[in-house]
Amino acid sequence: MPQSTTSERKWDTRREEKQRRIKSVASMSNGKVLATDDIIPALEKLIAPHDRVILEGNNQKQADFLSRSLASVNPDVLHDLHMLMPSVGRSEHLDLFEKGIAQKLDFAFSGPQSLRIAQLVEDGQLDIGAIHTYIELYSRLYVDLIPNVALVAGYKADRKGNLYTGPSTEDTPALVEAAAFKDGIVIAQVNELVDDEDDLPRVDIPGSWIDFVVVADQPFFIEPLFTRDPRLIKPVHILMGMMAIKGIYAKHEIQSLNHGIGFNTAAIELLLPTYGEQLGLKGKICKHWTLNPHPTLIPAIESGWVETVHSFGGELGMEEYIRHRPDVFFTGRDGSMRSNRTMCQLAGQYAADMFIGSTLQSDANGNSSTVTRGRISGFGGAPNMGHDPHGRRHATKAWLDLITEPNPVARGRKLVVQSVETFQAGNKPTFVNELDAVEVAKQAGMPLAPVMIYGDDMTHLLTEEGIAYLYMAKSDQERRDMIAAVAGITDIGMSITREKVSKLRQEGKVVFPEDLGIRRADATRSMLAAGSVADLVEWSDGLYQPPGKFRSW
Amino acid sequence: MPQSTTSERKWDTRREEKQRRIKSVASMSNGKVLATDDIIPALEKLIAPHDRVILEGNNQKQADFLSRSLASVNPDVLHDLHMLMPSVGRSEHLDLFEKGIAQKLDFAFSGPQSLRIAQLVEDGQLDIGAIHTYIELYSRLYVDLIPNVALVAGYKADRKGNLYTGPSTEDTPALVEAAAFKDGIVIAQVNELVDDEDDLPRVDIPGSWIDFVVVADQPFFIEPLFTRDPRLIKPVHILMGMMAIKGIYAKHEIQSLNHGIGFNTAAIELLLPTYGEQLGLKGKICKHWTLNPHPTLIPAIESGWVETVHSFGGELGMEEYIRHRPDVFFTGRDGSMRSNRTMCQLAGQYAADMFIGSTLQSDANGNSSTVTRGRISGFGGAPNMGHDPHGRRHATKAWLDLITEPNPVARGRKLVVQSVETFQAGNKPTFVNELDAVEVAKQAGMPLAPVMIYGDDMTHLLTEEGIAYLYMAKSDQERRDMIAAVAGITDIGMSITREKVSKLRQEGKVVFPEDLGIRRADATRSMLAAGSVADLVEWSDGLYQPPGKFRSW
Repeated sequence: MPQSTTSERKWDTRREEKQRRIKSVASMSNGKVLATDDIIPALEKLIAPHDRVILEGNNQKQADFLSRSLASVNPDVLHDLHMLMPSVGRSEHLDLFEKGIAQKLDFAFSGPQSLRIAQLVEDGQLDIGAIHTYIELYSRLYVDLIPNVALVAGYKADRKGNLYTGPSTEDTPALVEAAAFKDGIVIAQVNELVDDEDDLPRVDIPGSWIDFVVVADQPFFIEPLFTRDPRLIKPVHILMGMMAIKGIYAKHEIQSLNHGIGFNTAAIELLLPTYGEQLGLKGKICKHWTLNPHPTLIPAIESGWVETVHSFGGELGMEEYIRHRPDVFFTGRDGSMRSNRTMCQLAGQYAADMFIGSTLQSDANGNSSTVTRGRISGFGGAPNMGHDPHGRRHATKAWLDLITEPNPVARGRKLVVQSVETFQAGNKPTFVNELDAVEVAKQAGMPLAPVMIYGDDMTHLLTEEGIAYLYMAKSDQERRDMIAAVAGITDIGMSITREKVSKLRQEGKVVFPEDLGIRRADATRSMLAAGSVADLVEWSDGLYQPPGKFRSW
Repeated sequence: MPQSTTSERKWDTRREEKQRRIKSVASMSNGKVLATDDIIPALEKLIAPHDRVILEGNNQKQADFLSRSLASVNPDVLHDLHMLMPSVGRSEHLDLFEKGIAQKLDFAFSGPQSLRIAQLVEDGQLDIGAIHTYIELYSRLYVDLIPNVALVAGYKADRKGNLYTGPSTEDTPALVEAAAFKDGIVIAQVNELVDDEDDLPRVDIPGSWIDFVVVADQPFFIEPLFTRDPRLIKPVHILMGMMAIKGIYAKHEIQSLNHGIGFNTAAIELLLPTYGEQLGLKGKICKHWTLNPHPTLIPAIESGWVETVHSFGGELGMEEYIRHRPDVFFTGRDGSMRSNRTMCQLAGQYAADMFIGSTLQSDANGNSSTVTRGRISGFGGAPNMGHDPHGRRHATKAWLDLITEPNPVARGRKLVVQSVETFQAGNKPTFVNELDAVEVAKQAGMPLAPVMIYGDDMTHLLTEEGIAYLYMAKSDQERRDMIAAVAGITDIGMSITREKVSKLRQEGKVVFPEDLGIRRADATRSMLAAGSVADLVEWSDGLYQPPGKFRSW
């Protein structure tokens, strides 16, 4: 039975506060449209100290007019903000902390700002809540990190707030929904304002989810992060690519996969129409992809290898190519791509046979991290896609292939492949006794070391020495032996005897190129379907329009 | 370099086919509005044999006008459809197969139709692609199960196709996006058509994603699946609820959690304001919830236990209560709830400290399934939320608490609690030597047994006998012993000696109620904050309006 007095608690404090803030900017807005010149005072009124603020620091697309404006507010007015940012990529993102406007940060990726984040943590100017994988951060926006304000970016909006994000839809829907449906305030910067919905190519986010739009002082910053120039692909990448195709992709008949950024995977993409074709693999592997629209995938698409691609985000220069290949890519009825980082991360987690990634450091157990001394770089999507989702229940050939002991209540396993050279730039060994991340965690007061992919989640380790089929390991010790067997002349690689390596090769647990019938001398650049960005343009029939920095002709 | 002839392949076959189909119904449509009476011939033109067709058989909300209409098409015209259905809940869903309109089924849940599915499989009239967890199925819609057509349901649409789903937004956004952005055809049935967007409470799905709307012959079917009448809660549920609160929730300081359907968890919800209050736990546990708006959560909300609730779907009767509690629930600017099964499943996977569920059968290793002889029932969300996501990187007290051997590169662990009575209705033992699912898999030709939650993913087993802290087990054998220790007088429970049980209790690996200071005699219905649906209405100040079948006054 109800207790005597139900509390006199108010139940709509957020809604009331939102209305109060919206009214407070009436003089700076025309309906939902905020005046560009008034953005700084408007932010000072629409945000309050200690708010949780989403800032679409996205992987590529940046709400940079809003981030620059937020970094220019008066810290006496706005302070102690708790920033929720998928990606911390721009210097003003950290100016927020240096100036005392923000104090706490929950994020997923911070590549270019990793050094400065570490310094700010050391100086006590920035408290890290946690480093997340992307969809882990999105999911907390609906649970224990519900935002007060969301600052996002799109190409165009109409006066009702209907938003066309452009091809890089990316994180925007997940970020906006969390604020829009919990009485948070959503502010979208756009490159262009149109009068009416009919003037928008399509609507990605309905106007009823958006509180304010503001025309940015300049188009939002977007970076071609996923373009790899084929000229920079080295023979070692080609050797590793050939091993991957024959020793992993073909062996397990990989149908659906994710490729990350990196020259190793770019090499694989460019080897499919040549080496893959020689092996007779077309139509048998690599049909369904979850990845950004890599230009290096163009030759494989044009040769009929690729049935479908779903993307996390867009890629500068690929817009027209995608528009002309709608059977392959996800596009709206306007013809431009619709990406979606949430759904693509989910697809990469639950619907892909294989994840292949790279790392900077691995310990003897295969735990890896991109966090190295003095740098707190974050993880992006790797932890999500680089693990075996135990909630998966549908079977594919590749997934079943990793069951080593038949059992009716066994489950299959996702392939998690790490592809690394045994030494990094500057002759630093990739394989180390202790990850730098362990020391970084101690210094930053983190409860655990920021490991990107755990060794027990990795199923295959590929180096220029060979492939270790780690899923076959019968014990932790054998696993360490298998890692050492392909760790080259690093200390860890030197710790295993020739006899042990021979035994592992005889058992098929480790293979070297020669075991796969691959001659190192054959791994030359002539194997690549395209040797330059110009070749990619030609493959695309001129539809791919590379950004200036990739043009040399 | 590009090969000599780039193929003359067409790259927009889906787009062209979509346009062809849309034109073919010009005589039956007025813009995007299809005539109700023409729906059967319209479906015969808009769908083609062998198409992949999403049908919003949702957990609660049903596109039943569309499913009834589809089941009435001419099987000579439409046949061999491949149905993609989150939930198979209605008889006409299976009529599709019996009539030869559809042949293949990929699904996630099939509670009420589980018996008939098994029969159709046996008769060769239905091929199961796979049984999925919800977001696994959604993710495949973007990879290897891209749909040709999506049939969904909403409350209202305008003539441009802008859709208001109502509070049970559920799966609709994930289903529509996959079709809308891959040149599939999206048809939404609505209860009401309005002329203009301004007549909609809000827009959940933009009109540019929807190809056709059709007014249904009657409002869509929706079922109050998550309402549990407190009168049916038995003392054994209360005993188990007290153990859960003290021995699990308080012990690990659970902050964020998911509760499923079931009397065990309903009892816990109704014990928080009474027993939880006695233990001084208010404000210390159970602040953030991912669950449907259970009426039995009302007393905990009203007593100030619950900070936030994000929901998979809505619940009939809870609409006004939710509208008046926006600080707790996710609502749109119109005031009605916006649920989202994708984001809530993600939240339950990545942002929750704990999942607690129930099952019908468990084997000695703790593998459990709801698939029993003659029934193919599907899993719903349990496999997703009932496992430890290895991609999680943020730490909470509960997550860290499950680390048993400190190690800088350890990771924490999600609590996966199974709460079961040792015997099911009809005196069937819950604990069995072999899951029925193993035999079902053999008969249906599945590659693996349909296990709902794997034993090695379970961290806690709660029965009326006690709690087994399985995450503490040092070996598979000890794990089996711990399960047996709380398996009562089932064969498996009788297989362990008293001495072993005593030792496990001494080590704190198993606790009985008395070890927690809980007297079985105290577990009475008087402990519940509400003893009836009428009490819940009173707690809600009359805002909860239970459906007729739950009214007895």
